Amino acid sequence: MSEQNETLQEEFEPLFNPRAVAVIGATNNWGKWGFSTWNSLLDGYEGRVYPVNNRQKEILGYRAYSRVTDIPKDEPVDLAVFVIPAEGVPAVMEDCVKKGIRAGVIISAGFAETGKEGKSLQDEVVRIARKGSLRFIGGNCMGFWSATAHLKAFMFPLPVMDGPLALVSQGGNIGGSVVSAGYMRGIGFRSYVSCGCTADIQIEDYIEYFGDDPNVEVILAYIEGLNDGTRFIEKVRHVSAKKPVIALKPGRTEAATKAISSHSGSLAGLSSLYDDAFKKAGVMRVNTPEELLDTAMGFVTQPLPRGNKIAIISPGGSYGVLTADACASMGLDVIKLSDETIAEFNKIFPPRWSHGNPVDPAGDRDFIAYMQAPDLLLKLPEVDSLLYMGFTNFSGMASRFRGINKEIATIYQGVVQELTKLIPGEGELEDPQTDDGWMVEVTKKMVELFFSMFGTTDSSDSEAFSQKLTSAFKSKKAGPKIKEQFLSAAQSFYKGTFGESGNPFEDVFQTLMEGLLITWIETYDKPVITTSFMEMVSYSRLGYYAYSTPERAALVLTKLIEYGEYLERKDLVRGEGKKNG
Amino acid sequence: MSEQNETLQEEFEPLFNPRAVAVIGATNNWGKWGFSTWNSLLDGYEGRVYPVNNRQKEILGYRAYSRVTDIPKDEPVDLAVFVIPAEGVPAVMEDCVKKGIRAGVIISAGFAETGKEGKSLQDEVVRIARKGSLRFIGGNCMGFWSATAHLKAFMFPLPVMDGPLALVSQGGNIGGSVVSAGYMRGIGFRSYVSCGCTADIQIEDYIEYFGDDPNVEVILAYIEGLNDGTRFIEKVRHVSAKKPVIALKPGRTEAATKAISSHSGSLAGLSSLYDDAFKKAGVMRVNTPEELLDTAMGFVTQPLPRGNKIAIISPGGSYGVLTADACASMGLDVIKLSDETIAEFNKIFPPRWSHGNPVDPAGDRDFIAYMQAPDLLLKLPEVDSLLYMGFTNFSGMASRFRGINKEIATIYQGVVQELTKLIPGEGELEDPQTDDGWMVEVTKKMVELFFSMFGTTDSSDSEAFSQKLTSAFKSKKAGPKIKEQFLSAAQSFYKGTFGESGNPFEDVFQTLMEGLLITWIETYDKPVITTSFMEMVSYSRLGYYAYSTPERAALVLTKLIEYGEYLERKDLVRGEGKKNG
Repeated sequence: MSEQNETLQEEFEPLFNPRAVAVIGATNNWGKWGFSTWNSLLDGYEGRVYPVNNRQKEILGYRAYSRVTDIPKDEPVDLAVFVIPAEGVPAVMEDCVKKGIRAGVIISAGFAETGKEGKSLQDEVVRIARKGSLRFIGGNCMGFWSATAHLKAFMFPLPVMDGPLALVSQGGNIGGSVVSAGYMRGIGFRSYVSCGCTADIQIEDYIEYFGDDPNVEVILAYIEGLNDGTRFIEKVRHVSAKKPVIALKPGRTEAATKAISSHSGSLAGLSSLYDDAFKKAGVMRVNTPEELLDTAMGFVTQPLPRGNKIAIISPGGSYGVLTADACASMGLDVIKLSDETIAEFNKIFPPRWSHGNPVDPAGDRDFIAYMQAPDLLLKLPEVDSLLYMGFTNFSGMASRFRGINKEIATIYQGVVQELTKLIPGEGELEDPQTDDGWMVEVTKKMVELFFSMFGTTDSSDSEAFSQKLTSAFKSKKAGPKIKEQFLSAAQSFYKGTFGESGNPFEDVFQTLMEGLLITWIETYDKPVITTSFMEMVSYSRLGYYAYSTPERAALVLTKLIEYGEYLERKDLVRGEGKKNG
Repeated sequence: MSEQNETLQEEFEPLFNPRAVAVIGATNNWGKWGFSTWNSLLDGYEGRVYPVNNRQKEILGYRAYSRVTDIPKDEPVDLAVFVIPAEGVPAVMEDCVKKGIRAGVIISAGFAETGKEGKSLQDEVVRIARKGSLRFIGGNCMGFWSATAHLKAFMFPLPVMDGPLALVSQGGNIGGSVVSAGYMRGIGFRSYVSCGCTADIQIEDYIEYFGDDPNVEVILAYIEGLNDGTRFIEKVRHVSAKKPVIALKPGRTEAATKAISSHSGSLAGLSSLYDDAFKKAGVMRVNTPEELLDTAMGFVTQPLPRGNKIAIISPGGSYGVLTADACASMGLDVIKLSDETIAEFNKIFPPRWSHGNPVDPAGDRDFIAYMQAPDLLLKLPEVDSLLYMGFTNFSGMASRFRGINKEIATIYQGVVQELTKLIPGEGELEDPQTDDGWMVEVTKKMVELFFSMFGTTDSSDSEAFSQKLTSAFKSKKAGPKIKEQFLSAAQSFYKGTFGESGNPFEDVFQTLMEGLLITWIETYDKPVITTSFMEMVSYSRLGYYAYSTPERAALVLTKLIEYGEYLERKDLVRGEGKKNG
């Protein structure tokens, strides 16, 4: 970390890790954003909090202060959250400077985005803040989240959790949606900033800060327009040398350019100019919020592929066809299989298998073969990555197939009861990491049931299958996480029943399949991306999300390739920056 | 209906509406497709059923027959389902002809798609069937569904329901996924045929049959390759004159063309040749299964727009920007608002509103204005359709915002108790259609709570809002359906609690918002398409599905426009064929 950046980390400390927070405009009135903002703050933050309101004496049980300067002198405040009309901001900002507050977030709207008068008001606020070395987010923003301080200084209680991503967004709705979608997919954010009109802190400043945070693995941005493109390139290219930076930038059409000008007041500029700037800064561009999060998750879970040669495994011919179309349309090379590889698949698949790439066993019910297939492809030097369909995602199956017949349900219920005896209750294990023999036993029993349903009665088959599934427990890197998740999933047998409310088998199998996936990725150091069937919403347990369409999966791969090529060109190593020193 | 088509309807009667069905290869063995196929048949079909198996005497409680010809002479069978190895099919087909069976579905694989020998086997089967005037689906297919007979002659129990769509698919996985996704979205199928290698009945035959079925409103097809393009055009152009025909046709890339040849054995042909054929046949082409179902639902719920001029309403600036980009990129004209229209919005929105299209109230908390906005745009002659974001889709909110604070939850619980007193229990109403005053009362109470949360305490406001919401009850066309759904949703208050398991408010509001949407569409006879926020999965109650991205919504509009232009060019009227006679 350079000296300059140490300064940035220090400078932003009161913002992202404040000891105390004041909310200007906190109120008991349900109808005001000051109410939901105050509630949002109370949801997790453990530092001191001060509501500031000059008409109410108490806000939801907390003593309110008329002015920031009324807060006792010996109680320093680091961060001020503004939820008052714009006109009132300069006077309160003066108070904040007097109080020695060093950070702010101005949620209030009505600054430069509204025209000339708003612009002078904004300049005034910036002038006062600068005088007191107070740095601030906004105005006209929705607030921010910082996992370091469990701080939701946001307009409403946002579903968000800690994790390896960081996002700065020039649109609060887009940002909030990306963060909530991450929450649903089981992936979190170290920080999320709705940056608003960037009167003080610029988008590139946040990116620089995230770049230096060792907890952040991937940086996401929603950018309508930049104030200083040259400064952006200069700062961000140092960051993209260390970790991926992905930007969603709208404005490909005139209609959107106009909408941007009335939304954030930004000059959207020519879309191609942004393409150039992003290229120079090493930023990858995407076009939708879904692509933004999809790609970020790809970077968190996958290694960079060595090239664009792809193999596809699909349990259905028609899905194989669509997947080949999606991959090839996006410039991936759907390779031709060699005669040796075809001969290897001839040994494990029925004669009707596809005899090519996509590899499709064509309705084979032998799931061991389907599990062996990835190894046969990943070991080939001519395969850079694998797209594996269907079997890694059990989520949603139970609710989807509610109509399944009663006899199967009865058998399931019986096995659930048997399994419950094998699964340790909460607190019954000394150390789930070493005391793990039962996991193998439970897996074996489940696989036996699974196989009996599909008529495979040869016990050596189910033994081999169980071994394959539990091999991930032994992974040094991912094993502990997988075991932890297995325990938690298995304990769902105590509450879960097959039918309306869910299916504990699904939870356990999902963990095992994700574990297997991790083992393949680790063993071959190649991306293995999975897709689910149409609209099977995927809630992964370990972050190995199955994309709902082959287009989404293929796009993620192209971005991994793009970043790999960028590092190569610049002679950089991912996560480290320059190759030599 | 022409005389020829009456013949087709008669000819296919034993297939789609059989009096009795025999399953060749039905078995007690869980590991065989013959087991799940037999189970699938039992799930709903009420005609006579016969398992045929030459080794088992009884299949799940039903007496099994060694051969079809062993079924008593005075018990005629209309349909035979084949789930046996391909080699055995010719002999059994001979038996079927002897028994006088007139329809078949050959699930078995191993025909033309496997090569030369398979092809002669297939020719043999066709020859025998023709001899007995037996028409059949397949081989190498997954079976079919016919709502007329509640018949699931499918490889496994498929989640499917009756409805206005019909699908023929040359891929069982794609077809099954589209049908199940429809089930999740609340839209059903009159028929679904997995047509396999089309040894006998061709894709165009199914389309012709669906075209003459008055219960079918939209026809969907997944086509890998056609056997006779000229015949397809000749038959299908008569159908597309009466109702929309949408086709998913992969094969834009060489990789997919190869995959098609190994999957269905079809000659995929040049993608552009298919473009030409579809154009001549009046078929709209799409590229993914999602687009196929999205577009079909658009045709079911929306009128055809008069042109490509679109207005957008978005509750968030950044979403407005992305929506404008999506629409304009697809050739929709995001119109400029006139000064008069801007003046009208100035009256209902705060000064910071976007002053343009997309119309964005910019964080306004007055939801009445948001509800008034559509009327201000739809009434304009320069607006052909409206894209309305966010407020029509409450689904998934409860589970998403589980973190919402306890005080709000407590207030909710109180209102739930109060409302429960107003809502009639099951069977308490003589006629829900006329005895509907309580619906207005319940809506009023709910709106009052909603408004108190947002600080709007003026009772005339909430009164106006409630009136707006309940106006849809008076719709002659959709009112009865909306009332019925309202009753069912309101009764969820008896079981529902706010929190983990769901939110009855959501169910009711969803119905009301869908009702409002229907009223707008009916009043102005223009499409009003809605979108939800990112990954908010939408389960609509009345079929007015909110698409999860603006791209999806925009694509549907372009297809509605495409079909309108096609009819115009051919001087046709939707649903009727030729304008004059």
